Amino acid sequence: MPMKLLKPRPHTLDAWQAVQALASRDISAQALMQDCLDRIAEREGAVQAFAHLDPATALAAARALDAGPWRGPLHGLPLGVKDLFDTADLPTGYGSPVYAGHRPAADAAAVALCREAGALLPGKTVTTEFAYFHPGPTHNPRQLGHTPGGSSSGSAAAVADNMLPLALGTQMAASIIRPAAFCGVFGFKPSLGRVPRAGVKSLSETLDTVGGFARSVRDLGLLGAVLLGDLRLLDEAAVQHAPAPRIGLCTTPDAAQMDSDTQAAWAQAVQALAPQAAQLADAAWPRAMPDLVALQKLVMAHEMARSLAHERCQHRAALSPRLNALFDEGLATSGAQHATHLAQTQAARQLADGWFDAQAQGYDLLLAPSTLGTAPAGLQATGDPLFCRGWTLLGLPCIHLPFTQGRDGLPLGLQIVGRWGEDHRLLAAAHWCWQRLRP
Amino acid sequence: MPMKLLKPRPHTLDAWQAVQALASRDISAQALMQDCLDRIAEREGAVQAFAHLDPATALAAARALDAGPWRGPLHGLPLGVKDLFDTADLPTGYGSPVYAGHRPAADAAAVALCREAGALLPGKTVTTEFAYFHPGPTHNPRQLGHTPGGSSSGSAAAVADNMLPLALGTQMAASIIRPAAFCGVFGFKPSLGRVPRAGVKSLSETLDTVGGFARSVRDLGLLGAVLLGDLRLLDEAAVQHAPAPRIGLCTTPDAAQMDSDTQAAWAQAVQALAPQAAQLADAAWPRAMPDLVALQKLVMAHEMARSLAHERCQHRAALSPRLNALFDEGLATSGAQHATHLAQTQAARQLADGWFDAQAQGYDLLLAPSTLGTAPAGLQATGDPLFCRGWTLLGLPCIHLPFTQGRDGLPLGLQIVGRWGEDHRLLAAAHWCWQRLRP
Repeated sequence: MPMKLLKPRPHTLDAWQAVQALASRDISAQALMQDCLDRIAEREGAVQAFAHLDPATALAAARALDAGPWRGPLHGLPLGVKDLFDTADLPTGYGSPVYAGHRPAADAAAVALCREAGALLPGKTVTTEFAYFHPGPTHNPRQLGHTPGGSSSGSAAAVADNMLPLALGTQMAASIIRPAAFCGVFGFKPSLGRVPRAGVKSLSETLDTVGGFARSVRDLGLLGAVLLGDLRLLDEAAVQHAPAPRIGLCTTPDAAQMDSDTQAAWAQAVQALAPQAAQLADAAWPRAMPDLVALQKLVMAHEMARSLAHERCQHRAALSPRLNALFDEGLATSGAQHATHLAQTQAARQLADGWFDAQAQGYDLLLAPSTLGTAPAGLQATGDPLFCRGWTLLGLPCIHLPFTQGRDGLPLGLQIVGRWGEDHRLLAAAHWCWQRLRP
Repeated sequence: MPMKLLKPRPHTLDAWQAVQALASRDISAQALMQDCLDRIAEREGAVQAFAHLDPATALAAARALDAGPWRGPLHGLPLGVKDLFDTADLPTGYGSPVYAGHRPAADAAAVALCREAGALLPGKTVTTEFAYFHPGPTHNPRQLGHTPGGSSSGSAAAVADNMLPLALGTQMAASIIRPAAFCGVFGFKPSLGRVPRAGVKSLSETLDTVGGFARSVRDLGLLGAVLLGDLRLLDEAAVQHAPAPRIGLCTTPDAAQMDSDTQAAWAQAVQALAPQAAQLADAAWPRAMPDLVALQKLVMAHEMARSLAHERCQHRAALSPRLNALFDEGLATSGAQHATHLAQTQAARQLADGWFDAQAQGYDLLLAPSTLGTAPAGLQATGDPLFCRGWTLLGLPCIHLPFTQGRDGLPLGLQIVGRWGEDHRLLAAAHWCWQRLRP
């Protein structure tokens, strides 16, 4: 008698696998949702990835979806949504007691676009306080005593822990790439300005970027295609047959901050990619480039102090000391100085094109560190955003690739950075790199 | 016995005059608010500038202000707020039945900044449906059978009709400059990106700009200083002693659409400004400049269809046919095409610098038409946004100067356009121009 192959539990499927199982009716949206909810029930006590869960509504929505026509690329997929995005049917707290129990009137645009494409929401994932430093309760599912990173803490942890195949996040400094790195999942921060931010708590208009998390490169394409409305991210042929890229190595002016684990990961990646890359060389840091880290801090502090003017004026006592300190810092910058900082940002964005322009350095992507090292121990901080601040300020698309681990056994990886607007090329290049980096 | 001079009723004071009267205790915030409310009560039946009024709360806030310390540059000033801005204590409808009775959890950032500076809100002013074309009930206070323009219809009408000294608006195509022109008040669209949009219904991130209305140039400076956090807009000396500007005449590629009234206003302005300007000449339209009007339409349609994804998916039947048609148009543009449009927009913004750069054309400001002509008859449409689309796309600061009238007796004026980030210089130049244009 032949052995019956044990099917994997549905929650372990990545999004593409789940889409295929749903399309072939191997599984229903309801069954997939139920298994994800079961996984959440098993693990949530330890991980605390969710700010709010609503299993009954999610299952009802799944049943309705099963009874109807195919909705789109995310049909039937459970999607985690960072609690910085408004949702009409789930409370939205922005990680702050000020908004406990808040019920927005509408879904954020990114949520509505995902729902239009068939995604289902089991709940909202934990964010730090207004996506800044003050952490939520989430633990790193790889080692519970370590931070999952922030600010999209719950989204990264839930995807890493197989609670959900996909989740939405936002990045103002390092809030997608850093938790992706610490939790060992793929993270995608698209080109600034391509994904609508309507209904996402606005913190810094110059920086806030909507993106997401997944357990494979192609899953990032699935989510990204919907968020960007760009079907090229779904083009499997382009991904499978991506030409060998010209890779610029860019440890940034802060290279000295890479710890020995990150240095080892860097050496490993260079060794794996060099033999087959069309080119692999040190990318030159433009001499006229301003200090991006310092500039990102100034822009963020000033814009947060003004975007959160209502909270700053009405609820100061309910905000963390660190956020209040940021407001003071931000208000020390005048609007006149801020205009200069915005002009410097604009100039820096133009300079960045030189990395990719065929008439200049001509790289297809930059390889860069994501974090200083693996997730620090303790939950009182979410780690250093250093290596992401500059790319966020430049508005360039970034993908974190998790391919190794540190001496502590925690996940580690690097990010690749692409040209503005060429998110589909970056995704194809991510696939190429991943084929050569995967353990 | 000497004649006692009749004091003007407080609601006729402009904001600067009111600030001085408040500072010298000639008048209380409560008395000013009461007189504005009286004016509103006299006129609102005819003009219908307000989506919501709350006299009791406004008077209570005024009394509290009178009993406390000086709050800031807008201390005690009644401020009209377009019903596209969230307010925590007043319903916010975005001009749509979908949001009838909606109560946001927080003030929009711009509202909170104005309140922090001492402004008081008697109510919310009428916007068109989601700041697009479908009009609200507001009449033009200059001739009730004519449109006040849109989308900031109520804010422009209320300021024009002396109901309030200042009001907030937003512009995605022509929504500040056009109603300012039609109602005969000063309108200010600041440089894109300088005023936080948090809590303003997000329609088009590439275009949405927060600004306002007033009855004098210096009043625009008062409001602008708070919105931009830039005290240079309050610098009276800089305004009074502004050097004669180099003026570029820029009728745009659509000059043929200026009607005979606008042509006459144009000739009148050129005659008044030419003798004393440091330079006054035709500004060259950059040869590589894309068709800004076409590009603005494409960007706006695509971004509105995606930013309003929730309303499009959940409330389509409650939206106007014209908005639904815009969504269809916007979704016909792919995200890939949109990325190209955004890159073209960025390139156009760089080209625009040539008008102002001393190494290139070197103008301090461009003089340009605001509208085709005076406010059209009827309330079923808000007029053509043609002459504002391009400047909005370029993100340049614009000020409308009302200085003459058409043959129908309705107000008419022109706009001046400045370099990005130099809002304070544009304001000083507006004062210089106004001194020479005023009737």
